[in-house]
Amino acid sequence: MKELATAEIAVVGMGLMGGSLAGALRGRCRAVIGVSRRPEATRTAIDRGLVDAATEELAAGVKQADVVILATPVRTILRQLDEIGPLLPPGCLLMDLGSTKAEIVARMAALPEHVQPLGGHPMCGKEVAGIEAAEPAMLRGRPFLLTPLPRTSAEALALGRAIVQASGARPLVVDPERHDRLVAAISHLPYLLACGLVLTAETAAVDDSLVWQVAAGGFRDTSRLAASDVTMMMDILLTNHAPVSESLATLAEQLGELGRLIESGDEETLRQALQSVHDRRKGLVL
Amino acid sequence: MKELATAEIAVVGMGLMGGSLAGALRGRCRAVIGVSRRPEATRTAIDRGLVDAATEELAAGVKQADVVILATPVRTILRQLDEIGPLLPPGCLLMDLGSTKAEIVARMAALPEHVQPLGGHPMCGKEVAGIEAAEPAMLRGRPFLLTPLPRTSAEALALGRAIVQASGARPLVVDPERHDRLVAAISHLPYLLACGLVLTAETAAVDDSLVWQVAAGGFRDTSRLAASDVTMMMDILLTNHAPVSESLATLAEQLGELGRLIESGDEETLRQALQSVHDRRKGLVL
Repeated sequence: MKELATAEIAVVGMGLMGGSLAGALRGRCRAVIGVSRRPEATRTAIDRGLVDAATEELAAGVKQADVVILATPVRTILRQLDEIGPLLPPGCLLMDLGSTKAEIVARMAALPEHVQPLGGHPMCGKEVAGIEAAEPAMLRGRPFLLTPLPRTSAEALALGRAIVQASGARPLVVDPERHDRLVAAISHLPYLLACGLVLTAETAAVDDSLVWQVAAGGFRDTSRLAASDVTMMMDILLTNHAPVSESLATLAEQLGELGRLIESGDEETLRQALQSVHDRRKGLVL
Repeated sequence: MKELATAEIAVVGMGLMGGSLAGALRGRCRAVIGVSRRPEATRTAIDRGLVDAATEELAAGVKQADVVILATPVRTILRQLDEIGPLLPPGCLLMDLGSTKAEIVARMAALPEHVQPLGGHPMCGKEVAGIEAAEPAMLRGRPFLLTPLPRTSAEALALGRAIVQASGARPLVVDPERHDRLVAAISHLPYLLACGLVLTAETAAVDDSLVWQVAAGGFRDTSRLAASDVTMMMDILLTNHAPVSESLATLAEQLGELGRLIESGDEETLRQALQSVHDRRKGLVL
């Protein structure tokens, strides 16, 4: 397995995340090749200096790569994993940036033996999709979860860690099921809450169109994630439905309990609950 | 009733909102007097140039005022409304900035006849409380809801509008019940969602302390309001419990429906729902 400095890295998918990681790695390795079916995306990747070269042909882009990083939506990654194995040179490290890991890692287990698989997920993003919004600095200081397989060699994991560190992110190794439970609570649930808030405001707006006029900063921030890319979020929710449902059930319990305290007028218990939440949130460095 | 330019305005409560409005009005009227029981707050109001003068004595602060604006938490306003009437000069306009309006306006109806009451609520804020965070520009461009009573004279309402416009905000006249339903959906519900999200993450963190390490920008924004001032939020929730409960019930239905779509794997319906929410949120200028 090559060192990072001499490796050719192909990033498949030139969107927000693929473009950002490509730009962060460019200059830290021999070459970064951008791969996208969309000519606008490869052109933008080149124009913005995020890659050394770009191609619309998957086979051509990955055939000499020491590292291939799949940066497409989760279910596109699943399809690409079924096809990409025979295209990769021996010893190639195949990573992905998918937002859920259990299904992807299970699919990686079926890759041909000459490939070294490694699941990955950088914990950052924006509600704006596309390579135009890509920023190499986006990964800086962020946790980047890595989910190795039993078959992943120590050298492959070390190269994966080196890639994460070169991007400015902090590698954290976890198993895929643990990853998926974590992100259900702190990433997928916030998205659904934002959607639920917009839907509730829409319901209120049926009776009173002033709703949208009086919405202020609190509504803006709490609903921000509802503008996330729909295809990305569909893939995430459908490949992580069990942990997501569990998080939704916990949330329903917590909101039900807060609602009961408000209705009961049990001020002391309500104040303790809200104060504890307040202190926890104030104490978080995010 | 005086014109704004010649009016002396007493702002009672030198916190985030009282301090911001005082600073926005200073120089647009004869004098702005800050009133607070806390000597640090009156000192800060003077030091920051938010008021022309300040006092810790309510009676002294309001006795010559043409306008008195109560800028304390909702249930403090309710107590102050019971006591302040006899302290006010004849024809005084008594406004408030409380975040719920039905209970306050009902209490205003019992004020002595020589007082002109007008409910008010500027739709802006921060999750940081206190006069240190006050900013005169905070109200600029924001909706400022006004809830006149049947006894409120046209001149009093006109002076209230002038005050709102002088602060840079946009006056919107609504009835108090309508106000309370609006803010339940777009302000109080987002707070409860943020709290529910923190509580759900805490539940997940019992099993896995990595939760707090991997929380990213989406969690940060969606949970931001959970750090709001607890006393302010307690008063809001307890004086608006019926509309808040109704909003919570609508939200529970909406999240339940999204959860069922995710579990059922009905992709087409789920995509339509998420796309519609996405388009609505993208279309909002907030």
